[in-house]
Amino acid sequence: MSNVTAAYSELEKRFARLSAISGAAAMLHWDSAAMMPAGGSGPRAEQLAVLSLLSHEMLNSADFGDLLDKAENDASGLNDWQCANLAEMRNRWRHATAVNPELVEAHSHATSRCEMQWREARLNNDFASLVPALKEVVQLTQRIADAKSAAFDVSPYDALLEEYEPGCTSATIDALFDDLEAFLPGFLGEVLEKRKDAPPVITPEGPFDEAIQKQLGQEFMTALGFDFNHGRLDISHHPFTGGIPDDVRLTTRYETDDFTQGLMGTLHETGHALYEQGLPKEWRSQPVGSARGMALHESQSLLIEMQLSRSQDFLAYALPRIKAAFSASGPAWDIGNIERLYLNVEPGLIRVDADEVTYPLHVILRYRLEKALLSGDLPVEDLPAAWTNGMRSTLGITPPNDRLGCLQDIHWPSGAIGYFPTYTLGAMAAAQIYQASAAEIPDFTDQIRNGRFAPLLDWLRQNIHSRGSSQSMESIMQLATGAPLTADAFKAHLRNRYLP
Amino acid sequence: MSNVTAAYSELEKRFARLSAISGAAAMLHWDSAAMMPAGGSGPRAEQLAVLSLLSHEMLNSADFGDLLDKAENDASGLNDWQCANLAEMRNRWRHATAVNPELVEAHSHATSRCEMQWREARLNNDFASLVPALKEVVQLTQRIADAKSAAFDVSPYDALLEEYEPGCTSATIDALFDDLEAFLPGFLGEVLEKRKDAPPVITPEGPFDEAIQKQLGQEFMTALGFDFNHGRLDISHHPFTGGIPDDVRLTTRYETDDFTQGLMGTLHETGHALYEQGLPKEWRSQPVGSARGMALHESQSLLIEMQLSRSQDFLAYALPRIKAAFSASGPAWDIGNIERLYLNVEPGLIRVDADEVTYPLHVILRYRLEKALLSGDLPVEDLPAAWTNGMRSTLGITPPNDRLGCLQDIHWPSGAIGYFPTYTLGAMAAAQIYQASAAEIPDFTDQIRNGRFAPLLDWLRQNIHSRGSSQSMESIMQLATGAPLTADAFKAHLRNRYLP
Repeated sequence: MSNVTAAYSELEKRFARLSAISGAAAMLHWDSAAMMPAGGSGPRAEQLAVLSLLSHEMLNSADFGDLLDKAENDASGLNDWQCANLAEMRNRWRHATAVNPELVEAHSHATSRCEMQWREARLNNDFASLVPALKEVVQLTQRIADAKSAAFDVSPYDALLEEYEPGCTSATIDALFDDLEAFLPGFLGEVLEKRKDAPPVITPEGPFDEAIQKQLGQEFMTALGFDFNHGRLDISHHPFTGGIPDDVRLTTRYETDDFTQGLMGTLHETGHALYEQGLPKEWRSQPVGSARGMALHESQSLLIEMQLSRSQDFLAYALPRIKAAFSASGPAWDIGNIERLYLNVEPGLIRVDADEVTYPLHVILRYRLEKALLSGDLPVEDLPAAWTNGMRSTLGITPPNDRLGCLQDIHWPSGAIGYFPTYTLGAMAAAQIYQASAAEIPDFTDQIRNGRFAPLLDWLRQNIHSRGSSQSMESIMQLATGAPLTADAFKAHLRNRYLP
Repeated sequence: MSNVTAAYSELEKRFARLSAISGAAAMLHWDSAAMMPAGGSGPRAEQLAVLSLLSHEMLNSADFGDLLDKAENDASGLNDWQCANLAEMRNRWRHATAVNPELVEAHSHATSRCEMQWREARLNNDFASLVPALKEVVQLTQRIADAKSAAFDVSPYDALLEEYEPGCTSATIDALFDDLEAFLPGFLGEVLEKRKDAPPVITPEGPFDEAIQKQLGQEFMTALGFDFNHGRLDISHHPFTGGIPDDVRLTTRYETDDFTQGLMGTLHETGHALYEQGLPKEWRSQPVGSARGMALHESQSLLIEMQLSRSQDFLAYALPRIKAAFSASGPAWDIGNIERLYLNVEPGLIRVDADEVTYPLHVILRYRLEKALLSGDLPVEDLPAAWTNGMRSTLGITPPNDRLGCLQDIHWPSGAIGYFPTYTLGAMAAAQIYQASAAEIPDFTDQIRNGRFAPLLDWLRQNIHSRGSSQSMESIMQLATGAPLTADAFKAHLRNRYLP
């Protein structure tokens, strides 16, 4: 036992309670998406609102700040993890108290309304109908950003970024994205040029039985180290990873005419799930035991989906199993064709359907636009035009309508400004981490080709997962890869894969 | 709008919050039984404990009693439902505050330990190993009963009964059970005697595909009026009905060699579920909107399972559908044989497997024993002997061991004393309610034989479900059937069915 103060102990107790509440909410979120009949949505929204309110009230109780001060003023008895935990506690409290409750509530209601309006607007390809609701969300998000900016002493955008990627600044992102933007368009041109000489991709013909798709996904999940005693695989409209580290609920969706969607969804979410399952067991109910941030989380899903699962080595292991599962044969199932299918590159209108070469360009566009929305430089009304211009200049294509343009993502209507960049930070981190693991694991290629993923998982557990939030993202990257996060490994990866 | 006081409004707000918390807990309970992987149990227990604690703290907040006083002192502006709601609020608060928090917590921990110990003890047929834990539970339950007895001014046993069947007393139960006990043993003898002349039951041969069993169950649920937009059917080890009225989660279990278990489980739980779905919509988040008590709840499940589903009329509708689903034919599927299968009467050792004739004898035995346990007249150590004697005198059979005897039920280890009688009160109420509905619904027999269950459901909705807790059980029975609850209809039902 370390010599902790009463204040620190009391804080651990309170955060354990908060963790139980947020864990309950996480389960109910999963249930809403994977299990709940439509008629349950009203009371479910109420349940989630009450749980969120209770957490907020707990963090805003009168003595919370005092407890933090006391614990910080006499932290000599705390070990490193406890110190890191205390810092994370302070951070959670800061976020909960920086904004006044009325603003939080107004924002929450505005985003609920705006999300509903967005579904309608997207369906009807009617951006104008979204403008009033989106304006309200942007204005309230600006007020939140201003309040947090004042409290944290960072820029308003960076204050929002803090929620998703603590410690990250737009200065860092600008440098990384500039680097990528200098590289990608030219690289993309070369890839598209080279593809002209490649044989055409033959699409494997279904139907692919859903039960078999699920079995196959579970087989790969098990091989990758997912612990089904602490999690489940189910179906939802949008694949996601929910639940809690001891009970990870991941979802995918199956298309009967295309097995790759369900499988890649499963593999992507398995990367997230392995991170959650690998978080330090003894800190499960404390802030320091949480995942470090969205970028590192996305790095783990992309490491499995993009770095590993689309590699030649993985395909050598997986393809015979996929073919056996579907009793498939014929030229569409040649490894060369499947590889071309997996690594198809093509500028498209929809971010979530994008390949790994063009994906960052979608993100960079959104990053630029959301900063301009937040600063007020871009009025909400002007978003469609700015979007179209951006798509034309970055990807060289023009959305035929807003539905395939600025209405495609739920992020802004739901008030999430500062989230988009983490996708591409994650892609870069995935490449850098995968490269480091491959260099350190003996016979790496051989292990993967033979479906022995334990060395990779062990490496990730040790270097990423088990650190929880005990270190900053920066220092986790430094410790794991020997360097800060750069775009180098990602660029090298793209070159090796697409222009070998 | 009625002219309600600020105090009453505030109470409604607080109970809506409590309802959201208990609704969240109900969903997590369902998930634990139907979805959760084993490894999730630790954090789940914590989530449920925290939610329960939060509710308890809310009800115990300093101003709650004052609010109730104020609302009651100026209730002139309240309509009947609001008055009834206020009375239910007072009752919930009474239960939450009658026992000091330390005792509640000690009881909760003791029952958790004892339930675990019970699983072990039952597995090993080792009652002695359960004695210390069960003694602790009984002692703490006695202290709770004493505290509530003092607060409510009723006997300790009646104080416990209040939790499950508000307003019911052991005097009432004694009278009803005495009546039954005077009737059942003689009746049982006659039924067994008569059965000797009947052809032997041929058991339909499986295997019965689980997916088909589920489809069939869903077909009957839909026919009976279950709304799948507000509920689901899943699998759990013990069938139960959970969730909330807007999202009822019921479960059953399937045996591949016996389709009746899964189907009867589904039909029984559908009765519970229809009650929940039929509770008054405008009072969903308030105490007055809840089901009246466990006896009325059980009456609704037994009305569907026992009164309706095992009737000749229902079988005329259902059997062709069951045969078609399983592509079944042969003498085992003759309606006469299926009826004999459904209506088999045989004294057995296990309550949950008992037929409707012998079931009340199991319950009466437990009722007598639990009263003696609570009063201290029966020391825990003497339970096995008392059980064996009781089985011998009521059912004429002797359990070969405690596993098939006093170790079979989880109720006492989980601290539920006062629950058992509600099963048989429910069976009696089911018969009385079914009789009344059959008398009032035109062409009742014809409707059932043709699978038209809407008139029955409408009648139940109007006379039982939609009343919520706005009236006492007694007055609901009086209004619905024109008489207080007696054993008469149940006895008449048994005579008609088994000795026609």
